[in-house]
Amino acid sequence: MKSLIERANILIETLPYIKTFFGKTIVIKYGGKAMVDEELKHCFAQDIVLLRYIGAKPVVVHGGGVQINQVMKKMGKKAEFIDGLRVTDIETMEIVEMVLGGRISSEIVSLINHHGAQAVGLTGLDGKLIEACQTTDGSLTGQVTKINPRVIETLDENGFIPVIAPIGTGTDGKRYNINADTVASEIATTLSALKLILLSDTKGVLKDIKDPNSLISTLKVEEIDLLINDGCVSEGMLPKINACKCAISSNKVDKAHIIDGRIPHSILLELFTDKGIGTQIIRWCP
Amino acid sequence: MKSLIERANILIETLPYIKTFFGKTIVIKYGGKAMVDEELKHCFAQDIVLLRYIGAKPVVVHGGGVQINQVMKKMGKKAEFIDGLRVTDIETMEIVEMVLGGRISSEIVSLINHHGAQAVGLTGLDGKLIEACQTTDGSLTGQVTKINPRVIETLDENGFIPVIAPIGTGTDGKRYNINADTVASEIATTLSALKLILLSDTKGVLKDIKDPNSLISTLKVEEIDLLINDGCVSEGMLPKINACKCAISSNKVDKAHIIDGRIPHSILLELFTDKGIGTQIIRWCP
Amino acid sequence: MKSLIERANILIETLPYIKTFFGKTIVIKYGGKAMVDEELKHCFAQDIVLLRYIGAKPVVVHGGGVQINQVMKKMGKKAEFIDGLRVTDIETMEIVEMVLGGRISSEIVSLINHHGAQAVGLTGLDGKLIEACQTTDGSLTGQVTKINPRVIETLDENGFIPVIAPIGTGTDGKRYNINADTVASEIATTLSALKLILLSDTKGVLKDIKDPNSLISTLKVEEIDLLINDGCVSEGMLPKINACKCAISSNKVDKAHIIDGRIPHSILLELFTDKGIGTQIIRWCP
Amino acid sequence: MKSLIERANILIETLPYIKTFFGKTIVIKYGGKAMVDEELKHCFAQDIVLLRYIGAKPVVVHGGGVQINQVMKKMGKKAEFIDGLRVTDIETMEIVEMVLGGRISSEIVSLINHHGAQAVGLTGLDGKLIEACQTTDGSLTGQVTKINPRVIETLDENGFIPVIAPIGTGTDGKRYNINADTVASEIATTLSALKLILLSDTKGVLKDIKDPNSLISTLKVEEIDLLINDGCVSEGMLPKINACKCAISSNKVDKAHIIDGRIPHSILLELFTDKGIGTQIIRWCP
Amino acid sequence: MKSLIERANILIETLPYIKTFFGKTIVIKYGGKAMVDEELKHCFAQDIVLLRYIGAKPVVVHGGGVQINQVMKKMGKKAEFIDGLRVTDIETMEIVEMVLGGRISSEIVSLINHHGAQAVGLTGLDGKLIEACQTTDGSLTGQVTKINPRVIETLDENGFIPVIAPIGTGTDGKRYNINADTVASEIATTLSALKLILLSDTKGVLKDIKDPNSLISTLKVEEIDLLINDGCVSEGMLPKINACKCAISSNKVDKAHIIDGRIPHSILLELFTDKGIGTQIIRWCP
Amino acid sequence: MKSLIERANILIETLPYIKTFFGKTIVIKYGGKAMVDEELKHCFAQDIVLLRYIGAKPVVVHGGGVQINQVMKKMGKKAEFIDGLRVTDIETMEIVEMVLGGRISSEIVSLINHHGAQAVGLTGLDGKLIEACQTTDGSLTGQVTKINPRVIETLDENGFIPVIAPIGTGTDGKRYNINADTVASEIATTLSALKLILLSDTKGVLKDIKDPNSLISTLKVEEIDLLINDGCVSEGMLPKINACKCAISSNKVDKAHIIDGRIPHSILLELFTDKGIGTQIIRWCP
Repeated sequence: MKSLIERANILIETLPYIKTFFGKTIVIKYGGKAMVDEELKHCFAQDIVLLRYIGAKPVVVHGGGVQINQVMKKMGKKAEFIDGLRVTDIETMEIVEMVLGGRISSEIVSLINHHGAQAVGLTGLDGKLIEACQTTDGSLTGQVTKINPRVIETLDENGFIPVIAPIGTGTDGKRYNINADTVASEIATTLSALKLILLSDTKGVLKDIKDPNSLISTLKVEEIDLLINDGCVSEGMLPKINACKCAISSNKVDKAHIIDGRIPHSILLELFTDKGIGTQIIRWCP
Repeated sequence: MKSLIERANILIETLPYIKTFFGKTIVIKYGGKAMVDEELKHCFAQDIVLLRYIGAKPVVVHGGGVQINQVMKKMGKKAEFIDGLRVTDIETMEIVEMVLGGRISSEIVSLINHHGAQAVGLTGLDGKLIEACQTTDGSLTGQVTKINPRVIETLDENGFIPVIAPIGTGTDGKRYNINADTVASEIATTLSALKLILLSDTKGVLKDIKDPNSLISTLKVEEIDLLINDGCVSEGMLPKINACKCAISSNKVDKAHIIDGRIPHSILLELFTDKGIGTQIIRWCP
Repeated sequence: MKSLIERANILIETLPYIKTFFGKTIVIKYGGKAMVDEELKHCFAQDIVLLRYIGAKPVVVHGGGVQINQVMKKMGKKAEFIDGLRVTDIETMEIVEMVLGGRISSEIVSLINHHGAQAVGLTGLDGKLIEACQTTDGSLTGQVTKINPRVIETLDENGFIPVIAPIGTGTDGKRYNINADTVASEIATTLSALKLILLSDTKGVLKDIKDPNSLISTLKVEEIDLLINDGCVSEGMLPKINACKCAISSNKVDKAHIIDGRIPHSILLELFTDKGIGTQIIRWCP
Repeated sequence: MKSLIERANILIETLPYIKTFFGKTIVIKYGGKAMVDEELKHCFAQDIVLLRYIGAKPVVVHGGGVQINQVMKKMGKKAEFIDGLRVTDIETMEIVEMVLGGRISSEIVSLINHHGAQAVGLTGLDGKLIEACQTTDGSLTGQVTKINPRVIETLDENGFIPVIAPIGTGTDGKRYNINADTVASEIATTLSALKLILLSDTKGVLKDIKDPNSLISTLKVEEIDLLINDGCVSEGMLPKINACKCAISSNKVDKAHIIDGRIPHSILLELFTDKGIGTQIIRWCP
Repeated sequence: MKSLIERANILIETLPYIKTFFGKTIVIKYGGKAMVDEELKHCFAQDIVLLRYIGAKPVVVHGGGVQINQVMKKMGKKAEFIDGLRVTDIETMEIVEMVLGGRISSEIVSLINHHGAQAVGLTGLDGKLIEACQTTDGSLTGQVTKINPRVIETLDENGFIPVIAPIGTGTDGKRYNINADTVASEIATTLSALKLILLSDTKGVLKDIKDPNSLISTLKVEEIDLLINDGCVSEGMLPKINACKCAISSNKVDKAHIIDGRIPHSILLELFTDKGIGTQIIRWCP
Repeated sequence: MKSLIERANILIETLPYIKTFFGKTIVIKYGGKAMVDEELKHCFAQDIVLLRYIGAKPVVVHGGGVQINQVMKKMGKKAEFIDGLRVTDIETMEIVEMVLGGRISSEIVSLINHHGAQAVGLTGLDGKLIEACQTTDGSLTGQVTKINPRVIETLDENGFIPVIAPIGTGTDGKRYNINADTVASEIATTLSALKLILLSDTKGVLKDIKDPNSLISTLKVEEIDLLINDGCVSEGMLPKINACKCAISSNKVDKAHIIDGRIPHSILLELFTDKGIGTQIIRWCP
């Protein structure tokens, strides 16, 4: 009985958090180890379903770099990168579409459905969700020009959880491969999300890249540039921290979080504890 | 971190229960020690607010015998009972109205509001919620003739939690004092509630009244008459077990529960564990 | 036949008034003799029901000083007043809650239901309708800090007539006893009521307190201060006239009326005749 | 003051009637002297507007035989009748359309608007309201085959009062002149009206045609055939009494009334008194 | 097969136009030869029904000068005109009402219904659609003072096509005969119509009145005054061109068109081709 | 001008068809040459967009056998078939998902968006649209067990056109490759579609497979079995004709059509002509 009451207390302790999330949009960038490890995959899906059932509106944006590379390899095509960004020629773009829009979306939708909610996979083409244009000459790597959120809102209001592949549609009729962190940030901003959560394969933002115990728990958006200039931000962390900076600077998103996707239920741990487990990026409010 | 993950796991374990309760009505008869002990009162209010936030629709019905007696004493009036039922003359009825409809309702509404939801106190007069007629000649002790649930539904759909005092309105213009267990049962039936939960000051239904370790965890509705005939049901338990019997026999309510209101968060303990802590009354499904 | 046609003519003469009230909120402070005399009580209820059926939205706020004193006396407690305001200690507040929220609300709700509409009794706790804070140190006499009208609007839109006891809820968790005239004025202002009507046990505002024939039919809000300074306003009239002043000065309420509740159907008489029977307080519109 | 209170009492006495009419459809056939006398016209419009404001849904159907004859005469065309029914050739039908659909509708709409409601004139062509076919060979006198009430309902729900000219549309593309009493009866039946009211230039149905004091106050629908066989029903009354018979026999309309349109406010007199002023036709309910 | 594919291509070529008209209001002034020639009448009705089915919201305003003259003649009354405007005395006004509101409305409604949509005839009295006042002393020729579009909107939202006779209602209780081109322009402006289309019995606006080959295809609103001053606009064209000028100058209507109603399906020809067949009046957008 | 009027006439001739399709669901199986030829692809997209704009609700289901084979080849995997059905092992299923759900969906959505409507790509996993189970042991070729149409309906009501890849979700958590003709038939049945249209690379159903001039224009559903037994149905046509049979036999779908997707705008040609261009399958209505 004692252990039962303890359980009830834990539930009750979540009440203030539940109230905060009620009716609010939470955009989650899903990727890294959490997307390949079998156990972590189920934990992630459970977290999303729980968020939906307690009244929040989760929106999932996913990447899939590793899986794209695997398929490219199978098809005898070499992956090329410049400054960490994939060089996307037409053939690569076809593979990106197949992997992100076809296989990974299907898998995430399946997982979430399996745990009791109803997900719908989208790409940025669906309802012209993500309008994009070219970033690098001669490549199909794109950047967001506009988010048309109506298809997300339609699904949301009818109880479906949108799962979004970061592919954009250009006014030139071309399709573009876009960084998933950026897409998550832009969608969070357009939807005035309560939170933007980015799953990473690190503990969060570290003061000293080499010291895993130097986690910065709270980062004010104004401190980010200094941190980057000081070389404290690793290459992989750079797009993530910039995505958070954009979302918070827009004054539309309340808080951004970079969390360790390698920990089971990392989303719940970050959302349902005051301290959190990763780095939260906030606005300076003097 | 380990303890944090354990917490997350407890949350995830509630997911199947949350899904079951989503959008469903749960009628709770509140009374006994849980209504006088300061700590238990707050635990109760938290349980109700949590139910609301995870998407259930709690409806509270309360009694108040002890408090009525206190005020009667202060006003120099002696409480009379026949067969455990209060003999309600006009003067007593005025006190009943004041205590149930005035003081206790206010207190429960205050408690629930304090924990973050919005409650509204009702009596059976409001919107003619409870229509009643006389049971015993010459007394204002009444029995339910009809429930008009529109006022509950109106409040429900707009996010308010109804808190109901068991006072009925007669076609003769008189007001009647009604047993709260019965009122809860009738409302649960009319609303086709998922569950009827009665808080008591015992562990539940006991096989042997004198042996507190003889709790019956699950009771089929067909076994109730036998149990009563065998004298296994104490006087105080009788109206409760009959209220459960009516609700379950109506085929409108899924399960009824008699639980120990003296345990903190007894409602959550009963609702969020497979075994529960009290006695559940179910239909026989051969 | 002639008398029948006369009746029809009287009905037709009400048409311009009916048009004016259609869809509009009318807040009525109910109290005094109209609340204790059996015949007047029924007349009042009929007036309210009629207003509802012709398309107006009546909101009733009631006091209950006399009844509180009676119960206090029965419980052997002496009522204390400073400057006409009740000194409300904890014990008194419990009685206030019981009498206003329990007994009087129930009676008014019963009366209105009896005459064919559907009323719902509320206190300021329900849906946090009336937020309040302390006025006098050490006492539970409060003043309104905020009206949250959603519970009234919810009931209104669904055809229920709200009957409100002037008890407020503090952010400190305490409950406060508030002047009913003030509460009526604040609710009228928040709801942008067409009219605020205060029932009194006088003819209205008199030029000469001692001369009952000196009724002021129309009073401009700018004239009120002068009148008070001249000592023309009796002690009992003071809170009423101030309540009217606030409502009209807010520019949200069209007209306020202080009328003689001792006359049967005084509300109809005031509303359905050009001259009215009491004092109307209006804005100066040069 | 005494006369004022009397007025209030008269208002209160209407309350039970107002409750009965609330939200209910009342179909009124307007015609005869009430449509040509200036004072009676205004009385009629006021009655209709009052009904609308107290929550009833009046639907007006009008005839216009006298006015048609006037215009025919001006245009040098002789009106012909067989068995009291107008022989309608093509030229006559054009005049019927112009007079009923153009002039009379406009006048009634104007009158009702002038008294503060919003009316809309319709013919049976509008939204295919009245489908009809031929009755007499070679003539455009028609009979109703179907009522399509959607246009009435649309106007009703948006607060407009429909004013209907009895012109039907045939599947043969022709337009038909139909008896207005019949149209009113058919519309009342389709709309499940509470009441069908026919204004006539007599006191109602008389036991002895020659004795104006022999008014039958209440007539059971089963007694009608006997009455007709006995020759007690005059020629002009025949279509009216048959229209009532149809409506009541359909079990869709509660009561039908034939009243004296020559009395000012005859509609109110019939509706707001227990005895009424004309003949009411009811179902036998043994 | 080849001819079939050609047909499909024609359909596909209309797609860009259909997209433009989707959900938009198009006000059409119907009159002249198109209203008297049997074939043209059917073509007009088909055009209107097609517009409705592809998602546009057509609103028809009609005149009827010729028909009014015919009836006046039959009734032995001479039609008088000053400066091309009918001198409307009371007797004439009655005829105007009968012809416009009765006969012509009915005919147009019948035609449209026959081709598969549902029309409803209105005059400016219905729902006080057109408020008007006097233009010339002593006459019932009026000018629009206000459009109350609620009755049009109500019918529109419920799938009915409004057919409007240009009769206005004065605050003086009088009814006024108004120029139909003006009424169409005022309604188009109030409804923020995409287009105002006026059917005429000419090719459109001609540079040289005597040369039918001098059609001006596109006319900027700023050029109109010059054109009038140069005497290039015939008497009959003057009210039309002024109606267009008002609508376009209001910045509420996108384009106005004066087209040749003598050509079958002139509305479709104007709307579904880039060049159009008449004169379009546009805003100057430097 | 003459050619213009001809165009208008063609438009008008479509009116009866447009009326028939208004608000009705039309399910189209898209595949074959129409899905690979650049010009045909655009024609198809235009047809779909036109259907949407004239008020029909098109639902697209697509296959992609050729494209699956191409990718399999690139990845060094051999496609295997038994009885014309693909043997789908796990690796093949991954490719199926990528090609159908990723690449082809994206392309069709892009095409439709390009022509002015808003499409959304779905697989049978989204909102659990297609529930399926295994057909052949050891393979992931599935058959439909249930259609959950809510996601289609949600998109439809909000103006989006659903584009569906025939992948089903099993209760065993597996994903299944399903025949697209069958999926189209099942969806048409569940949605009570007006029409099921299957694009093929033949003229339709031929009496003599070898004689392309032996097209059967209309086929009664009862004749299908005979036709199959006579060996008149080619292997590729078999699943199509069975899909039609199921849809029509369900009594939920009005008509099924097998048409020649190699002809530009074949959908419009079939839908907007009485004769059509392919084979229509209908119910026998003696």
